[in-house]
Amino acid sequence: MQKSNVLVEALNMNGGDGPYSYAENSSYQRGAVETAEEIISRDIASKFDTKQLSSISPSPICIADFGCASGSNSLIAVHGIVEAIEAKLRSQGIDSKIIEFQVFFNDLVTNDFNMLLTSLPSERRYYAAAVPGSFHGILFPRTSLHFAYSSCALHWMSKLPDEVTDEGSPAWNNGRIFYIGAPNEVLEAYSSQFAKDMDSFLSARAHELVSGGLMALIVPAFPDGVLSLQTTNATEIQLLESCLVDMAKIGIVSEVEVDSFNLPAYYTSPKELKIVIEKNGDFTIERLETLKNPKRHIAMPNLRARTMFWRALIEGMIDKHFGEGVADELFNRYSTKAAQCSLFMSPERPSSVMLIAVLKRKDYLLGKK
Amino acid sequence: MQKSNVLVEALNMNGGDGPYSYAENSSYQRGAVETAEEIISRDIASKFDTKQLSSISPSPICIADFGCASGSNSLIAVHGIVEAIEAKLRSQGIDSKIIEFQVFFNDLVTNDFNMLLTSLPSERRYYAAAVPGSFHGILFPRTSLHFAYSSCALHWMSKLPDEVTDEGSPAWNNGRIFYIGAPNEVLEAYSSQFAKDMDSFLSARAHELVSGGLMALIVPAFPDGVLSLQTTNATEIQLLESCLVDMAKIGIVSEVEVDSFNLPAYYTSPKELKIVIEKNGDFTIERLETLKNPKRHIAMPNLRARTMFWRALIEGMIDKHFGEGVADELFNRYSTKAAQCSLFMSPERPSSVMLIAVLKRKDYLLGKK
Ligand SMILES: C[S@@+](CC[C@H](N)C(=O)[O-])C[C@H]1O[C@@H](n2cnc3c(N)ncnc32)[C@H](O)[C@@H]1O
Ligand SMILES: C[S@@+](CC[C@H](N)C(=O)[O-])C[C@H]1O[C@@H](n2cnc3c(N)ncnc32)[C@H](O)[C@@H]1O
Repeated sequence: MQKSNVLVEALNMNGGDGPYSYAENSSYQRGAVETAEEIISRDIASKFDTKQLSSISPSPICIADFGCASGSNSLIAVHGIVEAIEAKLRSQGIDSKIIEFQVFFNDLVTNDFNMLLTSLPSERRYYAAAVPGSFHGILFPRTSLHFAYSSCALHWMSKLPDEVTDEGSPAWNNGRIFYIGAPNEVLEAYSSQFAKDMDSFLSARAHELVSGGLMALIVPAFPDGVLSLQTTNATEIQLLESCLVDMAKIGIVSEVEVDSFNLPAYYTSPKELKIVIEKNGDFTIERLETLKNPKRHIAMPNLRARTMFWRALIEGMIDKHFGEGVADELFNRYSTKAAQCSLFMSPERPSSVMLIAVLKRKDYLLGKK
Repeated sequence: MQKSNVLVEALNMNGGDGPYSYAENSSYQRGAVETAEEIISRDIASKFDTKQLSSISPSPICIADFGCASGSNSLIAVHGIVEAIEAKLRSQGIDSKIIEFQVFFNDLVTNDFNMLLTSLPSERRYYAAAVPGSFHGILFPRTSLHFAYSSCALHWMSKLPDEVTDEGSPAWNNGRIFYIGAPNEVLEAYSSQFAKDMDSFLSARAHELVSGGLMALIVPAFPDGVLSLQTTNATEIQLLESCLVDMAKIGIVSEVEVDSFNLPAYYTSPKELKIVIEKNGDFTIERLETLKNPKRHIAMPNLRARTMFWRALIEGMIDKHFGEGVADELFNRYSTKAAQCSLFMSPERPSSVMLIAVLKRKDYLLGKK
């Protein structure tokens, strides 16, 4: 297997609930999830199609969360979706009590599902199931879902674009770990991989959703017209990069290892996402906008919190690529450097945003498939 | 929470794939699973009802395994069931290729689902999902399953009967860890708990299965007319018991702890199981018989293998009840004692058997519900 794929297998978030776990370090995503909840509830009220439900022998309403990680944010989101659908049913005079819900939690097979399953509330309004596997492929039978959801997960790509680790390619990304600050060819390689992955995701969901089924996606992105290099994310990633380069200079890691290390993630933009969805053609866009001020659960996101945030995200990849122990050194260096860096986290600089897209599965007879 | 319930929460099999894991020590169950496979396939051919499947927009065929543990036997069983249903579909002129299968793997929430999910074959004919929770309750939406399966799991009870740990009761089971060799009241308490649990199991499955849906159960039991005390299982359990009593005498564990420790499991009999199923009333009995000569994967089940077998089964409970470390001592003592015990594993003595029951969900309009 290619090194690039090994990396992607390690991109699941840190499991468990220790200090570096995703569970303890996902308050930024939590903010987005909670801000989105209200919007999604409103869209369910106006757009969720109850015609699918036969009144004589009602089948369950099936909901899936794609890329749920080890849980807490996912449980909040799912709870909100179930409540909104119940409210919709009641508003239509349907006895919501006789309707059963089944919720499927998806993530990569390497995800800590034990943690997720043990944290399910024992009093809940739905039957729960965990579904392992990549959301870039089909994971459910056809027309078996009524609502699909995914939050802060679609920026992860299915693989690194081959070119960025190919010495012979103009998109070879040596000495960098991301496309920020890299030649245009690198950005293009990332962007076209993202488009392919998004298309696979949409086609797979189109197989699984009933016609008229809704899908809400929360996707990290850069705002239209903002150069990635101008963002605080750029500063953070370039700081990480420079720590790795320093570590290569004194031989803690090898230069070759740094050259072949690239983050398999991509920040799309509102415009780009729209094009990808329209090109795919299976869904109508009911909403596509930037989430306003996701509530941040840490009032002043401080340096320590941001360091932990990055660590929860990429420690798995660092371990897999450079071996165990490197992450400690890397993140120690990172927090020292970041503390000295005056530009760091300046509130005036643009940063990544969260897009919310609400899509509707086109009718099978009218849609392209 | 009562001590008795804490115990039941710990009854999941040892996870992982280490030397004491269930995965490495379940060849006896494996034998039963494989012997049953042929019978189940034949019953699917003659009794599986394909009327449920609409030919225009075929819904998936849903199968659930209740009490799957960490996996390997379950994967074999499920593979056999899917193949048999496909063959049945083909025999009816249905294009089996367009039919999708969804398989749900159920066990207690404390089960090692990570192990199960990572061992799923990547090339498989079905979508997979893990469903945590006790099979004594409803775990799926109504009429959402076509086939239910459970192997070597229904002998585990939902709780210890209260009486056996109640000093004031004639069924108080002090100085013993099971009903074998105990006063009749203890046996009765166990037997009535088993009947209640089996009834809950059947009612829950009746909710979940389509009418005409099949269910295959492999249940450990003693043959009709055999006194439990005469079996090799009795010898093994009484040996375990005597080791614990010895350990209490020299203070490694406390006497009170031994008095309150009881295995929450029960060996039913063909007659008793039949009565429980008929009393429940949701299913017709299509088959109920003793599995002939389950193939044993270890040709001569030796002492070491049997010790490991018991350890994989009850180590979790021993840890929970007596604390960590006690299991090592207990099983060392056990293998020393067992080696000296002449009666041990005599091939002439009766032993527990495996029953196979194939049940059919009665029609909703005709059945009691
Ligand atoms: C940052 S977490 C987001 C978790 C949660 N949805 C939230 O909003 O907090 C991203 C998750 O997506 C998962 N993920 C990434 N690529 C995936 C893929 N191809 N298929 C399924 N899950 C994937 C990762 O394993 C990780 O758990
Ligand atoms: C001996 S293992 C059998 C595993 C597998 N079916 C086989 O045949 O090898 C019994 C399994 O049943 C599970 N189990 C016991 N009580 C249960 C309950 N109430 N609900 C779900 N699973 C249960 C245990 O956790 C354990 O994994």
